[in-house]
Amino acid sequence: MPHIDRRALAIGALGVALTANAAAQTQPAAFPDADATDPVRLGWMQGTQPPADKRIAFEDGSYFQFPRTRWSFSNWRNFIRSVSVTRGSGPVSRLPVVLRNDLDAVGFTPLSASAPMTWRQSLDANYTDAILVLHRGRVAYERYFGVTTPETQHVAFSATKSFVGLIGQILIAEGKLDSSQSVASLVPELAQSGFADATVQQVADMTTAIRFDENYTAPQSEIRRYSEAGRFRPRPENYKGPEGYYAFAATVAKDGVHGERFTYRTINTDVLAWMIARVEGKPFQQVLADRIWSRLGMEADAAITIDGVGTPFAGGGLMARLRDMARFGETMRLGGIVNGRRAFPAGAVAEIAAGGDTSKFPTTTYPALRGASYRAQWWVTHNAHSAYMARGVHGQGIYIDPRAEMVIARFGSHPIAGNAANDPITLPAYQAMAEALMLGKRA
Amino acid sequence: MPHIDRRALAIGALGVALTANAAAQTQPAAFPDADATDPVRLGWMQGTQPPADKRIAFEDGSYFQFPRTRWSFSNWRNFIRSVSVTRGSGPVSRLPVVLRNDLDAVGFTPLSASAPMTWRQSLDANYTDAILVLHRGRVAYERYFGVTTPETQHVAFSATKSFVGLIGQILIAEGKLDSSQSVASLVPELAQSGFADATVQQVADMTTAIRFDENYTAPQSEIRRYSEAGRFRPRPENYKGPEGYYAFAATVAKDGVHGERFTYRTINTDVLAWMIARVEGKPFQQVLADRIWSRLGMEADAAITIDGVGTPFAGGGLMARLRDMARFGETMRLGGIVNGRRAFPAGAVAEIAAGGDTSKFPTTTYPALRGASYRAQWWVTHNAHSAYMARGVHGQGIYIDPRAEMVIARFGSHPIAGNAANDPITLPAYQAMAEALMLGKRA
Repeated sequence: MPHIDRRALAIGALGVALTANAAAQTQPAAFPDADATDPVRLGWMQGTQPPADKRIAFEDGSYFQFPRTRWSFSNWRNFIRSVSVTRGSGPVSRLPVVLRNDLDAVGFTPLSASAPMTWRQSLDANYTDAILVLHRGRVAYERYFGVTTPETQHVAFSATKSFVGLIGQILIAEGKLDSSQSVASLVPELAQSGFADATVQQVADMTTAIRFDENYTAPQSEIRRYSEAGRFRPRPENYKGPEGYYAFAATVAKDGVHGERFTYRTINTDVLAWMIARVEGKPFQQVLADRIWSRLGMEADAAITIDGVGTPFAGGGLMARLRDMARFGETMRLGGIVNGRRAFPAGAVAEIAAGGDTSKFPTTTYPALRGASYRAQWWVTHNAHSAYMARGVHGQGIYIDPRAEMVIARFGSHPIAGNAANDPITLPAYQAMAEALMLGKRA
Repeated sequence: MPHIDRRALAIGALGVALTANAAAQTQPAAFPDADATDPVRLGWMQGTQPPADKRIAFEDGSYFQFPRTRWSFSNWRNFIRSVSVTRGSGPVSRLPVVLRNDLDAVGFTPLSASAPMTWRQSLDANYTDAILVLHRGRVAYERYFGVTTPETQHVAFSATKSFVGLIGQILIAEGKLDSSQSVASLVPELAQSGFADATVQQVADMTTAIRFDENYTAPQSEIRRYSEAGRFRPRPENYKGPEGYYAFAATVAKDGVHGERFTYRTINTDVLAWMIARVEGKPFQQVLADRIWSRLGMEADAAITIDGVGTPFAGGGLMARLRDMARFGETMRLGGIVNGRRAFPAGAVAEIAAGGDTSKFPTTTYPALRGASYRAQWWVTHNAHSAYMARGVHGQGIYIDPRAEMVIARFGSHPIAGNAANDPITLPAYQAMAEALMLGKRA
């Protein structure tokens, strides 16, 4: 497939490619709505012996089929082996709650639409499983839907990547990683791969030029075969491919010139995590705990899926509670400070918040993100509020709005595997929420 | 196989049967010692791409082979899917630390031995991975070995059962479960099985008479096939057996008269958990969280392995931090009180601590436990200190000594699948520790 076609496919704002067919289904009408697909109502996996038609399993692929995903994304550990990302053993950091009951009525107009919508309506329209809005560090809004609860470890999918990207910037800030160093010099196992002469920063910014089609719905795409290698999806019978993410990465070919443009490809994140684990001398899940998860007063361990040789899926395997996702976002908003103590170097956070090279960002691919950039595994809007985001397929996200002093954490189970499907609603809804909070009105 | 033979096989104090061959290997000399099998020294799973001979996997069964078990028991989630048992979101309960540096020298003589041994030596002799001694609620002694850390979720194996047993007694104390009710009346799915006419209490006390050989080393034993049904062990090619623990339980035949004698069989615990989940109307892992894990100020979520249909392995799948195991033991010691608040009904705890019918306990099978009883999934010594225990194969345990105001939590990776192998050292060591603490001497 020629290079230009692969990019054209990657129309998901998350970078997850939609087929022409899936793109045609961005009309909400093509899927039953949030209420009709409520996982409690549909009775998935209820009782001690769920009947066969209410069971969801990994082996038959049903765990990845909408509307079963409305249950499975909140119960991802049921399907894939995972290890813990420890919170440490210290006290839980307080998250003050000052709920505002006027926020459901916040109104906005979706992109390319004429009729307005309320915040509350947007949650259903986007198949939201859970959402929390922090304003100045206090919980202003918090809702859980379906089978998702405050204690649910919902899969974060690609929002995982932003944790990896921050750690990369931390190690660069500390001088442990050189952003211009080549992949092969850090990970000799990749010396024969297309990553070999890419730099750390090119991997972090996803400007590598590699043969890797991020099309979730094409059975032979690299992202599908990569998921099978990692046991994130069931393998075809007589699977003969690589065992594990890293073994797969070693097989990826070069395709073009590194550094020219941003192309969203999940495997970059695992290569970045591999370099991080190598430099730190411990498994990536332990680095994630030591560098982030154990420093923020998280209320629970997170979990991360692993492949068959125990490698965590840094590209999309994190599972965590919504409030802990919000704690992370708030620490980012405060430049690396939590409860008055420094958790991350200020420079690492500033580097991300400042964003990257907008000229390398394909605005035609991401129409809802004109003028944005992708920097160290974060999506930076460069809008008037300088908002930036961690984003995961099907609607996962951490949205940080420095100007409005707002952080939004969200889990979702949108039927379409690409944020292009929910961005036209989500992005103006978040902006409207920010403006409402800045106005400070209360009901 | 006649009834008497099966009982004769069950010589493990844990109830896990040893073959004659395994029993012959109870000489420590038959296995390399703790130091020689240190998992860090042996280099299991180290680095980002462990070499093939340092890998441990589920599929080839290596995760269950000593000395790899010295790594895998501390990393059990790497091998089997698990779900979380939530701690809730409240504060972590404080565990005051007042270490005593004279305890390593505590001396005792192992059963049937002539030479004395020190406490410290006992830890190596029993392949201890982690151990913590609470005296009057304060940490007097705490050690971690090999790859096990305070944040490790070590598999508890059958110590899991005692959590289930307590919940059963709680529901009986609350009148939600009737101890004389039949299994079939609560779980009609078991009406055609050998459990049908057993009572709740007979299941809890393991006095059911069923055809179920608890011999871990015999490939065709029921416990092996049960583990395969639950995906706790890899299945043979062309596996045609039941899918999941409950489906297997429905196939178990009756063999004798219920209520006559205690015979340790893991499947009783899952049947008890099934009744509990049915009565409570939620998955067992949620009951475990609601009734225990979220009430004690645990510092982390626990995890529990699941079968292919999502049923947690109540008979042996719990994974938790050592300190949280100790918190549970301490709450039991205080009759259900934690931090001055009541977590469990006093009657439920008292019922367990008082023990069961010693005449139903096969003392020839458990020579180190003469005069003991098995009550509601707990091992009750009826010794001078009224000590009682949660016990898991390979040396897991929670030991509660009310007289000495002592609780010991331990994780281990003993090569032999039966506590008969470590009891001759463990039990006198614990008694000597209790006496040392009662004397109150300090170095």
